[in-house]
Amino acid sequence: MMGEQHKSDIIDDLALIAHEFRIPIDIISKSAELVNKAQEKDSIEKDKLHVIMDGIIKNCHRMNLLTSQVICIAQAENNALKIIVEKNNVEQFFKKIEEYLAPFQKRYNVKFTFKVNFKEPYIVSDFKKIETILLNLISNAVKYSKDIDRHITVKCFDCEEGDFICFSVKDRGIGISEQEKEKIFSKFYRSERFNTRQTEGSGLGLAIVKKFVDILGGKISVESQPDKGSEFIVTIPRNQNKTLSPMKVVEAPLGYTTFKTSVEEVFAAIREV
Amino acid sequence: MMGEQHKSDIIDDLALIAHEFRIPIDIISKSAELVNKAQEKDSIEKDKLHVIMDGIIKNCHRMNLLTSQVICIAQAENNALKIIVEKNNVEQFFKKIEEYLAPFQKRYNVKFTFKVNFKEPYIVSDFKKIETILLNLISNAVKYSKDIDRHITVKCFDCEEGDFICFSVKDRGIGISEQEKEKIFSKFYRSERFNTRQTEGSGLGLAIVKKFVDILGGKISVESQPDKGSEFIVTIPRNQNKTLSPMKVVEAPLGYTTFKTSVEEVFAAIREV
Repeated sequence: MMGEQHKSDIIDDLALIAHEFRIPIDIISKSAELVNKAQEKDSIEKDKLHVIMDGIIKNCHRMNLLTSQVICIAQAENNALKIIVEKNNVEQFFKKIEEYLAPFQKRYNVKFTFKVNFKEPYIVSDFKKIETILLNLISNAVKYSKDIDRHITVKCFDCEEGDFICFSVKDRGIGISEQEKEKIFSKFYRSERFNTRQTEGSGLGLAIVKKFVDILGGKISVESQPDKGSEFIVTIPRNQNKTLSPMKVVEAPLGYTTFKTSVEEVFAAIREV
Repeated sequence: MMGEQHKSDIIDDLALIAHEFRIPIDIISKSAELVNKAQEKDSIEKDKLHVIMDGIIKNCHRMNLLTSQVICIAQAENNALKIIVEKNNVEQFFKKIEEYLAPFQKRYNVKFTFKVNFKEPYIVSDFKKIETILLNLISNAVKYSKDIDRHITVKCFDCEEGDFICFSVKDRGIGISEQEKEKIFSKFYRSERFNTRQTEGSGLGLAIVKKFVDILGGKISVESQPDKGSEFIVTIPRNQNKTLSPMKVVEAPLGYTTFKTSVEEVFAAIREV
């Protein structure tokens, strides 16, 4: 049997998620109607049609992201998340992410600076989860940056005498107040100091980050000054095989880590400036 | 605490629902990409663009329906569904539905015949739930009709000495086998005798029908002969105020029953022939 509290939680969550779907569905459907209406009078301009189609594609990415996030949260809350480990070069991994993010700099008018420094670059971990953690933190940093100063710094390095790896994502954005700090990792939380047009994300990103960091046996902290910016710092064990029970750990299949679509999706909720 | 069985049920459900979203999202996103690609070479033809946009709109309807269905199932499973009653003319109600369905006859190459006959047309019930039950049964009947004989008969009348109302939806479709009869009201069930292209629905429609009939204190039965057709028969109390505890019943707000969008949505999962 489910407790009453849990029951209503699920309904509340579903109602919020449904609402998150309604917005992109509505945008897409209205876009298509607009094209049909414009065509009744005259042919629609090539450039204009292109912009509308790009908008539709972007909203599809938003929904795909939302779909993955919902499954992810459900799995996490039901303790059904698996850790899939591989031994790989974490330095190369971060450089690859930097590479994949490069094309987004122009589109979102943002500058990414990566500082990668490992004495021992090989780690045994779930790279896909690290990827999700990192991309969510980066997209969050972009989202809460100020339009005039979108500069994100990502640092990655060994820490705690080499038993852990560390990475941090720093922005020069609107920052987080002390009261907010407790809430940001809750599901569906979004900063109230932002207008709704700007905060287009589901509010699930940081909740997923927290859950992933937890199951990897890591820690996350945030340092912030309102109006100056925030820095999220993640620490995770270098060798999951040493820290977790073998029950929870699965060998990674070949080609497990792929960024391309995920970057596109994670960024789809960000407003271009 | 949730039982293990219940936990994995929720994850299974979510995975299936997510999959149901992926299909329309994918269709929409590929349609938009197609338009962009076609434009690179040459201008896209007016008629073709119209067809593509209509396809996008239809898939938005599918997703809206799915969103409502998911909330509905979640509410039903958590006993959070409310019955909202009004005293209204059920004869006029069925005739209104007939009217709204009329334009769909041509589009889906289907014929609807309504036979409405009430001695006492005023009932106290949740008309929105009756609407959902009826539309889901009708859309189901169309879906499982044979392309060459899409004729649906809807009958509505007083029964059990006037204490109940009855309505039935009859098709000349592929029918239901005895073994299948037990499964059709389960979530996500779809007839295996249909190819996947044809069964585009979520498999949630009949599950919702069953839950709604149950909470209205009614009954549903099905008579069918494989390859000849099926008839779904619903019986519900004429006066909800008499049969249900007042706790569960809420007065309907003005303008509570509206069909327009729901018909469009319920039919969006049906293949046009």
